[in-house]
Amino acid sequence: MRAALVDREGRIHGRVKAPTPAGDVMAALKGAIEGLAKDDVINDVIGVGIGVAGLVDRRAKRVLISPNIRSLDGQGFEGLYPGRTLALENDANAAAMGELWLGAGKRFPSFVLLTLGTGIGGGFIHNGRLLDVAAEAGHMSIDKEGPKCVCGNYGCLELFASARAITGAVVKALEGGVESALRGLYEGNVYKLTAEDIFKAASDGDGLSREALKEAGRYLGVGIANLINLLSPDAVLLAGGLTGAWDIYVAEAVKEAQKRALKSLFESVGILPASLGDDAGVLGAARLVLEPDSA
Amino acid sequence: MRAALVDREGRIHGRVKAPTPAGDVMAALKGAIEGLAKDDVINDVIGVGIGVAGLVDRRAKRVLISPNIRSLDGQGFEGLYPGRTLALENDANAAAMGELWLGAGKRFPSFVLLTLGTGIGGGFIHNGRLLDVAAEAGHMSIDKEGPKCVCGNYGCLELFASARAITGAVVKALEGGVESALRGLYEGNVYKLTAEDIFKAASDGDGLSREALKEAGRYLGVGIANLINLLSPDAVLLAGGLTGAWDIYVAEAVKEAQKRALKSLFESVGILPASLGDDAGVLGAARLVLEPDSA
Repeated sequence: MRAALVDREGRIHGRVKAPTPAGDVMAALKGAIEGLAKDDVINDVIGVGIGVAGLVDRRAKRVLISPNIRSLDGQGFEGLYPGRTLALENDANAAAMGELWLGAGKRFPSFVLLTLGTGIGGGFIHNGRLLDVAAEAGHMSIDKEGPKCVCGNYGCLELFASARAITGAVVKALEGGVESALRGLYEGNVYKLTAEDIFKAASDGDGLSREALKEAGRYLGVGIANLINLLSPDAVLLAGGLTGAWDIYVAEAVKEAQKRALKSLFESVGILPASLGDDAGVLGAARLVLEPDSA
Repeated sequence: MRAALVDREGRIHGRVKAPTPAGDVMAALKGAIEGLAKDDVINDVIGVGIGVAGLVDRRAKRVLISPNIRSLDGQGFEGLYPGRTLALENDANAAAMGELWLGAGKRFPSFVLLTLGTGIGGGFIHNGRLLDVAAEAGHMSIDKEGPKCVCGNYGCLELFASARAITGAVVKALEGGVESALRGLYEGNVYKLTAEDIFKAASDGDGLSREALKEAGRYLGVGIANLINLLSPDAVLLAGGLTGAWDIYVAEAVKEAQKRALKSLFESVGILPASLGDDAGVLGAARLVLEPDSA
C-alpha cells in the first residue's frame, strides 16, 4: 500500500508505503491517510483517490476482484470519509492518469500505458481523458492454445512478457542444464533469482539472460502491436521495473511491434518510458479526485 | 460502394449500391450522391458521410490505407462538396455509430461492434460516443506464432474466425480427403464453396461444416474475450454475414469467451446481434455529419 498527500498542483507533501493488510483494509487506509494529513490538515483534505490492482466498480466505489490482494475482493470504500470526494480506479489506469497530468503523457492526447512488473497492467488515455474501462492488457491472449492463466484465460500476454515469465523461463532453462552466470548467485539456488539479477547478468553478457529478456520482449511487442491496431494511440508509455532492461527487452518489443502493427499506425506512435515512477498512481488517483471529469 | 440519402431522423430516402470503381472514386461517389439527391434536393444536403474499409485520417479527410480497395489508398475527400460537412470514418466504426443511433446499440452506453464477413472489422462505442480509433479487431493477433496476414501481422483473429478462414479450412479438409456433403456442390469444384454453402450444410448436419464453424467460433471467442478484458463493454454486437450461423458459430464463440474473459466483466456483458444490417454504415456516417461531436 502506497499513499501520498497531494496538492492541487500535483506537489507531493508526504508519502507512506506499507504492506497491504490481510485484515481490516479500511482501518489501515485511514491510518495511512491520517498519518500523512496530521492534525487539522485532515480538514483541508477534499477527497481520497485510490488505485487498486484489480477490477473496480467506479460508480459503486467497490473492488470487484483483486487477484493478488484477495483481502480487497468486494471491498467498498464509499463510507471512508463521508462528504468528501472518493475516486476508485484500477492502479494502472490511475498511473496513466498521473502520466497524463504531470508525466510523459502530457504531450500525447491519446496513449496506452503499460506497467511491466511481476504482472502487466494497462491504462488507456483517449483525447486527454482516462478511458474508464478495464484495460487489462496483461490478460489479452496472444496465444489461443497457450497455458492457463490465474485469471481464467489462456495464453495471456502476462504469461510471456512479465517479470514472472522471465524468471520462470530462466529457471526452467537452468533446471534443464543450460549454462549461465546466474548459477553463481544464491549459492546455486535458482529459485531465488529475480528479474533484476537477470537484467544485471544480461548487461554483463550472460547468454541465457539475454535470450530470456529478448524472448519476453518479442512477446511484449506482439501485445503492443495489438494495442496499436486496436487503439491507434499517439504513444505507448512503458512503466515498471522491467523498463530497466530497456536496451534488450524493450528494444526487442519495439522491433517486433514495428514488424506487426499496421504500418501507418506504427509510423505515428512513440514508444517511450513513462516518467513518474512509483508516484504515477498516487498522482493519477489525486487527479481523479480534483477533476472527476477527467475520466 | 453503398450510398443512401438519410434525413435528420435517420429515415432512408433512397439507396444505391454499385461496385467501387478502380479509377476515379470521387467522380463515382459524386455520381452516386447526385443520383440519390436529384435536382434541387442536392441543395438541401447538409453534408456527406463516408465509411471506408480501411484506416482513415479523420481530420485530413483522407484514406490512409484500404487493403481490399487499393484505389482508395491515399484518397482525400476534402474537396468533394466544399462548404458542406464531410465525415470520413472506417466502415465498421461507422456501423457502430449507426447501431448506437438507431440499432441494437441504443440501450448500451459502451459496446464493441464486430463485423463478421470475409474479414473482421471492429468499432468501439464508449459512454455514448464513437471512439475515433483504428479498432482493427480483426488484426489483433491471437496466435503469436501464427501465419502471416496480408496486414503484416501474424496470427490475426481474421485468419481464424472470418468467412475466408472458414471456407479456407473447409477446402483444405476436402483436399485432404475428408468426407462431406459439400462435395456434391458445384460438380465437386470445392474452390467455388462459399460460407453460405457451409452454413447450409451445417444446418443439414454436415459434420465437416459444423466442425469448421465451431472452430472458427471458438477463435472468435478468444478475440471477444480479449476485447472484454480490454474494454469492459456493456455489450458485444455482432454484424455481418457470419451471424447467419448464430446457433453454431456464435454460440461457440460465446461459450469460449465465457471460459476466458474475466468473470465479473463477462457477467455484465451482452453478446447480441446488431440490428441494422447493411444500413448500419450509411446511417452511422450520416450521424457523424449531423452530430460531429458524437465521436
